[in-house]
Amino acid sequence: MTTTTIQQDLYPTRTGEVPGPAIEREHPTVWGSEADGPFDAAALEAHEQRGFTILENFITPSEVDLYSAELRRLSADQSLAGDPRVITEKSTGAVRSVFEVTALSEAIDALSRDPRVLDRARQLLGSDVYLHQTRVNYMPGFKGSGFYWHSDFETWHAEDGMPAPRAVSCSIALTPNYPYNGGLMVMPGSHRTYAPGVGETPADNHSSSLKEQTVGVPSQEAVTEMAHRYGIDQFTGPAGSALWFDSNIMHGSGNNITPFPRSNVFMVFNSVENTLEDPYAAPTPRPEHIASRDFTPLR
Amino acid sequence: MTTTTIQQDLYPTRTGEVPGPAIEREHPTVWGSEADGPFDAAALEAHEQRGFTILENFITPSEVDLYSAELRRLSADQSLAGDPRVITEKSTGAVRSVFEVTALSEAIDALSRDPRVLDRARQLLGSDVYLHQTRVNYMPGFKGSGFYWHSDFETWHAEDGMPAPRAVSCSIALTPNYPYNGGLMVMPGSHRTYAPGVGETPADNHSSSLKEQTVGVPSQEAVTEMAHRYGIDQFTGPAGSALWFDSNIMHGSGNNITPFPRSNVFMVFNSVENTLEDPYAAPTPRPEHIASRDFTPLR
Repeated sequence: MTTTTIQQDLYPTRTGEVPGPAIEREHPTVWGSEADGPFDAAALEAHEQRGFTILENFITPSEVDLYSAELRRLSADQSLAGDPRVITEKSTGAVRSVFEVTALSEAIDALSRDPRVLDRARQLLGSDVYLHQTRVNYMPGFKGSGFYWHSDFETWHAEDGMPAPRAVSCSIALTPNYPYNGGLMVMPGSHRTYAPGVGETPADNHSSSLKEQTVGVPSQEAVTEMAHRYGIDQFTGPAGSALWFDSNIMHGSGNNITPFPRSNVFMVFNSVENTLEDPYAAPTPRPEHIASRDFTPLR
Repeated sequence: MTTTTIQQDLYPTRTGEVPGPAIEREHPTVWGSEADGPFDAAALEAHEQRGFTILENFITPSEVDLYSAELRRLSADQSLAGDPRVITEKSTGAVRSVFEVTALSEAIDALSRDPRVLDRARQLLGSDVYLHQTRVNYMPGFKGSGFYWHSDFETWHAEDGMPAPRAVSCSIALTPNYPYNGGLMVMPGSHRTYAPGVGETPADNHSSSLKEQTVGVPSQEAVTEMAHRYGIDQFTGPAGSALWFDSNIMHGSGNNITPFPRSNVFMVFNSVENTLEDPYAAPTPRPEHIASRDFTPLR
């Protein structure tokens, strides 16, 4: 006689046209303590409550120049034309993101291992970490079309098989973020609520969803309820600012009709105790340049 | 022998694919003085310099309720279906604006004659005034698509035959304007620069341009130059706030992915010494519900 243990999915999603009800998260947001890294106890408590932390002057102006030059170099690199790691804007063909950028840029690889970055990631997640995803993003002036509200964790759970929201993102601004040029909006505290996504995942969803979210987004009812409950903050600040944000925080961005572009370096750290399994709500996992399955701890 | 006097057009526009160079405006912005109305000398000087003035608590909360109810009533009025004064959102069919609203709402007609409004309009324009255009606007949550950068005066000059920028708009917010829900962005000081519009005006341009600006917008080069020269401010504030802004100020708005809608009452006052002539760059004038030719001074 054989027995099968079916572990309950704590974060069910994409179960049909009408999404399931919002779920109050049981997992913590901050897994480490003051002794584990650069954040003091008050900063950790604020991060636990709000789900994000903004640090101005996180990198120096000369570092901003260095990574901006890397972004320009990669965007112009003809040998990367047609590379699946390079995502272009639907309407203009301009380069919007370059994924797995630590494999393409020694400077950005070094940044991901820099103690300012790595020690904070380890502290927030309370363990060794690895890179789940990295990219540089470029949102041009006039044409940036923004992203609808979503939780990254919803996608990483559904399509990548990430078991729990024990991952954290670090977005480092390479250009000023104004309130009006399409910067990230977050709902502070929303990381405590898991809003299941609408619909079911088609095969190969990622090739279109990176340009424009269509499946897996929360319902308008859930976004409305959460916006009234949590309010909306914006990630504003000069170039060199960093936003650390929980994998489950509800976030999005409007379009950008101003001439001021936005670019950033984006790194997702996942706990080595939270490595990927089979996707929870998709037929096949996404490619490794979007969701790495190399779980080697970052040093 | 007959002679013909050809008066030079100080504000040429829509002369072809490549717009003419930006023109420094010679006409003043503030035509009256402290003795003429509610604005004191410092407020007038600030308005002259910046091209706009924000007044919080311009109307009371109960007035906000009153005009909001009028907007709902007009949007739901089946007898107005198909009325050219009612503009609907391209993608959803939802009511976006109701023009000539003073003819449809006694309450809003009275508001346009209220001393708080009328005395300021007269003071800024230094003469009696009439209503060039009025409307109520409703930008829904999630779906509001915004407006690209433009100068209202460019359109009023080109398509309505308004000779000079001696007109002022008053926008009264009926909902909170946050930095992130698609509120108006203005370039402070840009009213001193006239940026000619791109292209030539097709017949009946107004029926599409009210939904989405396509002709008469400034070039990206002009917007970039002006954004760097003047910067960008946003009209934020609680419901009941008023924005008074010069007819030539460069303004626009992004989209709105938040659940928070925006609605406002919008009134354009023109000086009776600046009444409409033939259009300067269009084959025929726009309809009267968009550009009134009843120049009777408002009392």
